[in-house]
Amino acid sequence: MSATPISAARVETELRALLGKGVLDSGQTAPLLVDQRGLYRGRPLAVVQPASVAEVAAVLRWAHGHGIGVVPQGGNTGYCGGATPDESGRQLLLLLRGLNRIREVDAENFSLTAEAGCTLAQVQQAAAAVGRLFPLSLGSEHSCQIGGNLATNAGGLNVLRYGMTRDLTLGVEAVLADGRIYEGLNTLRKDNTGYDLTSLLIGSEGTLAVITAAALKLWPATAASATAMIGLRDVPSAIQLLALLQAAASSRLTSFELMPRTAVDLASRYVDGVRDPLTLAHPWYLLCELRSSAAESLDEMLIQALGSDAAQALIAEAALAVGERQRADFWRLRESVPAAQRRAGASLKHDISVPLTAVAGFIDAVDRWVAQEIPDGMLVCYGHAGDGNLHCNVSSRPGVDLQTFRRHEEPLKRFVHDTVASLHGSISAEHGIGRLKVDELQRYAPPVELALMRRIKQALDPSGIMNPGKVL
Amino acid sequence: MSATPISAARVETELRALLGKGVLDSGQTAPLLVDQRGLYRGRPLAVVQPASVAEVAAVLRWAHGHGIGVVPQGGNTGYCGGATPDESGRQLLLLLRGLNRIREVDAENFSLTAEAGCTLAQVQQAAAAVGRLFPLSLGSEHSCQIGGNLATNAGGLNVLRYGMTRDLTLGVEAVLADGRIYEGLNTLRKDNTGYDLTSLLIGSEGTLAVITAAALKLWPATAASATAMIGLRDVPSAIQLLALLQAAASSRLTSFELMPRTAVDLASRYVDGVRDPLTLAHPWYLLCELRSSAAESLDEMLIQALGSDAAQALIAEAALAVGERQRADFWRLRESVPAAQRRAGASLKHDISVPLTAVAGFIDAVDRWVAQEIPDGMLVCYGHAGDGNLHCNVSSRPGVDLQTFRRHEEPLKRFVHDTVASLHGSISAEHGIGRLKVDELQRYAPPVELALMRRIKQALDPSGIMNPGKVL
Repeated sequence: MSATPISAARVETELRALLGKGVLDSGQTAPLLVDQRGLYRGRPLAVVQPASVAEVAAVLRWAHGHGIGVVPQGGNTGYCGGATPDESGRQLLLLLRGLNRIREVDAENFSLTAEAGCTLAQVQQAAAAVGRLFPLSLGSEHSCQIGGNLATNAGGLNVLRYGMTRDLTLGVEAVLADGRIYEGLNTLRKDNTGYDLTSLLIGSEGTLAVITAAALKLWPATAASATAMIGLRDVPSAIQLLALLQAAASSRLTSFELMPRTAVDLASRYVDGVRDPLTLAHPWYLLCELRSSAAESLDEMLIQALGSDAAQALIAEAALAVGERQRADFWRLRESVPAAQRRAGASLKHDISVPLTAVAGFIDAVDRWVAQEIPDGMLVCYGHAGDGNLHCNVSSRPGVDLQTFRRHEEPLKRFVHDTVASLHGSISAEHGIGRLKVDELQRYAPPVELALMRRIKQALDPSGIMNPGKVL
Repeated sequence: MSATPISAARVETELRALLGKGVLDSGQTAPLLVDQRGLYRGRPLAVVQPASVAEVAAVLRWAHGHGIGVVPQGGNTGYCGGATPDESGRQLLLLLRGLNRIREVDAENFSLTAEAGCTLAQVQQAAAAVGRLFPLSLGSEHSCQIGGNLATNAGGLNVLRYGMTRDLTLGVEAVLADGRIYEGLNTLRKDNTGYDLTSLLIGSEGTLAVITAAALKLWPATAASATAMIGLRDVPSAIQLLALLQAAASSRLTSFELMPRTAVDLASRYVDGVRDPLTLAHPWYLLCELRSSAAESLDEMLIQALGSDAAQALIAEAALAVGERQRADFWRLRESVPAAQRRAGASLKHDISVPLTAVAGFIDAVDRWVAQEIPDGMLVCYGHAGDGNLHCNVSSRPGVDLQTFRRHEEPLKRFVHDTVASLHGSISAEHGIGRLKVDELQRYAPPVELALMRRIKQALDPSGIMNPGKVL
């Protein structure tokens, strides 16, 4: 960083000259300085909230001139501390929430252009208002912002059918490290004019540029759906069932979520209104959903698929959601697992993916290790099994002292990530690297890959002011 | 380029030491030096055909040491001269066809790993052999190679449902400019560990690295399909019908190809066995196809969708393909258009995309301009209308002198590309930039975008040896 020294008073004066009320008082900002999981508490040089792309550009030009690090923040719902400034008091926290307009909705072109600070729910609603679907769906959709979804390439509940955020994006507008504006907001399905800058900026967690707006893909609105909760003996049955359902339902299969008995127990116990929807206790539960924009009978299709001889050989018990209320109940069970884990005590978390072929072996290996090494904990390994993406968490058992339990954190992480690496998996499937996993990325990524990333970082942010200390 | 001078004899000796018989004699290479459209004839320093990734790496290390430009070539089916060396006699032509193994097919994980020199048909067949679909489909699929498909981010006939080559790829293996090997062949659906190097290398046309293998996504095999040829009065009817079909058929709609009367006439006249499948003459024709991995009646679904009041108001005449033979006939008509244009005389070609909302206006503007400015030609604007991607070509009328006709090339290109730019479209939707459109990219891309691309090029290929003179 080629820093021109600057006093605190001058910071305030110069930023006020650029942004006026867009420089926040410290009384307004306390909750923004702690990340979602409470892992980090930042101390920023200042907190700014620009009201336009031009103001974001002005902030970046200013920061670039002074060699000051800039940390962009959306809804502050990330799991890896990517949107929290460090403790140095020298980084600027840049809030995108002032850029919250839906700029354009084009139903005929199946596209929508939103500013970074729009909440995901706001984007979903703007699409729904014209009979279209924006399929990204996350537990935090009412508070997370689309800019943060792009910065972290968010995944969520419908990846199996629609892909990650990168797959849902047609183009971006972004402010570069030197304050120039990259105007890449095209709404084209096909564009082979040079390098894929859109995909590069998506998932770069603010370390290459600040995304200020995105052109997003829309789909026809959902006209029919069918949802089932399925009890299974083991994980291999789930993976075999996935292939059967994908063949039988084609691309209508939108969600395929796996939960162990432990997750169902925790959610039923700690979250009001959640109960086990099956009559027997099973080692594994599967929540699967079909959707279609055509007005077709997906319940019948799902019943036939689950009723086939091949499927029946895998399924211990199955319940089809009858009506919207029961469907909501099934989903509440799935979506309550993180909250239940929080209420139950400590939770040691990992967001991993492995090839589908390796899912069962991975869970088995971790299960055996946890049983032996963490007697005061229990494995709660659940998630987007259709994508090979598991939230491989270990919760403390009732009555266990939380600080004592934390001693498992490092050895567990090492075992989980070593196992993932041996299976050619990913140590961060959908949450990103942020600050939390910088060392892990250095440990597991091949040196050539790290070298390429560093060269790109150096090329786009030569003075290193973009979200310093994150990702690399 | 930091060149250490080297004599022709030493080139031969040193390359033979690395590759043995992998250095080709000039007698074997003549057809490889001319591009598919006959626009360029290269004169290479040497032509090499490595037999392994290690040999590709050795070639790159050697070229890097001597500052010699390297031009990778797959099936030599590209439309923009991207795989042809220049005329300097100083560039090395690097054939990937020696790397032609399918390394792995994993039906349960829905993935396949293929070396760059496998033909697209070979990849499709390897997937089909295990009951899976690799959906990329191009006219040249029996000769184009998957490495070239990735290098150019190929599009084709099924983009509407499955996306471009980038969307079909999970990871790549590539040799960098200095000969290091980037090992990014993961088969994961979700991996948020840092920057998206896979997407960056795909579509970079060999200017950043040489792709040597790819991990590809597979889908369940197709179990049902339905195909219709539709006659329409105008283009707006086609775009409205697209939205109706996408709602009615959901993601089963895989192809939506538009042709003008001129294309149907040319194909019927110049290609044996092709005939107009409709009973009346229409200004516009639409070939649309539904597919599903479920054994469902798509014919019935398509008839119902096309028979709805809303659709009937748009359709002048429709024929449903009865049986595989008629389906093949419909497709032969569509796929014969390029050959018919070649046989009819000169064809001035453009590969553009615009937002769906702008398709009709674009065609109308070009049609009027051509009618006025090119009386000895006729517009044959056809293609992947569902993606907003049109091959906007002008054919010479019978008896017109071809050299004289070429005088229209520059003014037509300027009008077409200016119109595209005014509609926020792309001057290269699926064919890439290659050598043909380098100047056009400089003309139309925003300066900030070009600056970003140059920085990335400089970062990954500092000595400028990767496919010099292409893209940038």
